[in-house]
Amino acid sequence: MAGYTPGEQLNDPGVVKLNTNECPYPPSPRVIEAVREACTGDRLRKYPQPLGDGFRQAAAKVLGVDPDGILVGNGSDDILTVLTRAFVPEGGRVVTMTPGYVLYKSLADIQGATLTALPFAADWQLPDPWPERGAHLTLVANPNSPSGTMVLNSEVARVAEACGGPFVLDEAYADFAESNGLGLLTTLPNLVVTRTMSKFYALAGVRFGFAVARPDTVRELVKVKDSYNCDVLSLAAATAAIQDQSYYADVRSRIVAVRGRMTVALSELGFRVTPSHANFVWCVRRDRPLKPIYEALKAKNVLVRFMAYPSGEGLRITVGTGPEVEQLLAELRRIL
Amino acid sequence: MAGYTPGEQLNDPGVVKLNTNECPYPPSPRVIEAVREACTGDRLRKYPQPLGDGFRQAAAKVLGVDPDGILVGNGSDDILTVLTRAFVPEGGRVVTMTPGYVLYKSLADIQGATLTALPFAADWQLPDPWPERGAHLTLVANPNSPSGTMVLNSEVARVAEACGGPFVLDEAYADFAESNGLGLLTTLPNLVVTRTMSKFYALAGVRFGFAVARPDTVRELVKVKDSYNCDVLSLAAATAAIQDQSYYADVRSRIVAVRGRMTVALSELGFRVTPSHANFVWCVRRDRPLKPIYEALKAKNVLVRFMAYPSGEGLRITVGTGPEVEQLLAELRRIL
Repeated sequence: MAGYTPGEQLNDPGVVKLNTNECPYPPSPRVIEAVREACTGDRLRKYPQPLGDGFRQAAAKVLGVDPDGILVGNGSDDILTVLTRAFVPEGGRVVTMTPGYVLYKSLADIQGATLTALPFAADWQLPDPWPERGAHLTLVANPNSPSGTMVLNSEVARVAEACGGPFVLDEAYADFAESNGLGLLTTLPNLVVTRTMSKFYALAGVRFGFAVARPDTVRELVKVKDSYNCDVLSLAAATAAIQDQSYYADVRSRIVAVRGRMTVALSELGFRVTPSHANFVWCVRRDRPLKPIYEALKAKNVLVRFMAYPSGEGLRITVGTGPEVEQLLAELRRIL
Repeated sequence: MAGYTPGEQLNDPGVVKLNTNECPYPPSPRVIEAVREACTGDRLRKYPQPLGDGFRQAAAKVLGVDPDGILVGNGSDDILTVLTRAFVPEGGRVVTMTPGYVLYKSLADIQGATLTALPFAADWQLPDPWPERGAHLTLVANPNSPSGTMVLNSEVARVAEACGGPFVLDEAYADFAESNGLGLLTTLPNLVVTRTMSKFYALAGVRFGFAVARPDTVRELVKVKDSYNCDVLSLAAATAAIQDQSYYADVRSRIVAVRGRMTVALSELGFRVTPSHANFVWCVRRDRPLKPIYEALKAKNVLVRFMAYPSGEGLRITVGTGPEVEQLLAELRRIL
């Protein structure tokens, strides 16, 4: 099989990196303090909490969920891997949407399962009626990547009920949106909501994600994860981050503001920009191919993500800082 | 299925923790510096190196191997999970030794595979002739846990050749021993050597392990691991640790010295203590059951590992600091 290809990681300080949806602002200063504190005493040399209880308590309080319903992971990739391994047998069937997160295909491949990718209905809506009942695992990202679009909770509930099996709502980008699906957990026993701290919480380097589900589901998923899948440093960082909501409220407003300006400016440059609920925008255009634009930007040290799906190609551009986006726009004006 | 049960993590500072083979000394001070340094700039908010190239270069130099033959992992548990997923189909067959590392059984269970655990021959030697040809994965720990014993490289080579499939030499404890199997990589194309930084390098809290194999094997294993399975902090910690060999040479001599004293003292208390090449000793006795001794020690805040195998039970006791071992011995004298 071919493996998943992660976005380019050119960490040259001269590069404007708008390709992997990292947060353009640093994490909360409390995160740094917490990591430094976690280096003291005997915490590095001793095994971490297997279930990340400190984080579970903190996150449960912030999110208003049951701490026993939280599963900690080494990034949400780890969570998605655990879910695939727990629910999907070899030869099994995974269902998701396309255009969507390409990793789901790799996870199905590794598991020896087949992936059915359903095309979105008009305006990035989920198909109605839902055509795939009885899959071993159904995954829907909300907000979706690369489109940045969202479907209503009522639509999520409709599909979760119709799919007839475990239903994963991948909320990697929900922190940038106006709503999320956590409230659906009380009525949908087959729902698993996944989150990452890589995007909104500016901790992509730290690798931390989590799932929220019914406690009895989490008790079974724990058997599949590596015993100590999260380390003391990432647990300390993630706990400090999720507790500092006031810092991140400011991050959110800045990103939402730049996203709005970016959407208008890119539209003025002739892109069709899908209104986004995430920290990136999806840009397509019919008048010229997008790959040369991606390449011309890269030559000028501005990295965006060129993505080609059967339904068409586009550029997925991360919402950076104001100056980063100005630089992107200036280069685009020159190129176009 | 039942999940793997990790050793008790009672991180109460009053507890003498000799149950999970953590290093009793702190990691190199350079590790702390490296972690603090990794918190600066934009390293937390950006994705880490997917393949851990900095670590690979450093480790390759120290170990005298090809950097492209190193696969980094979120603990050696992650490495063992990747190996199982890469090589073992559902319904497949995994072979190992018993008494051995109980996690191998859990990994086979999760994969829907069967595990055959072969009993050791006399004096903890591998069976000759090797009776299980054609397994999807054969795993041998050297030094072995819980025995702490080693087999010669010539025996490893014999079994690796006879097993007729991928052969994993789990060297979690090899840093405490006088020899290791890395030299066998040049002649055995099916060999994968796994290492952890949790024990010798005092980084159990940080979660870092790696495999050494042929570069073409590693290129395939990379497809199965999570894209960013190691975070910037653990990569920084592991790189700093493996580069500070002079610090760890001192750790090694201290542990070897205490291990020798401990072996004699436990023998004087009536245990049969297997000579160990690791940072723990395996103690059995026929005159009385061991579980009450484990429990009596625990009541006195001394935690050791009670392990029951079909072939018999024993206490696996980590080599602690001198004072920790004195406290263990004092409690044992009182109990016995």
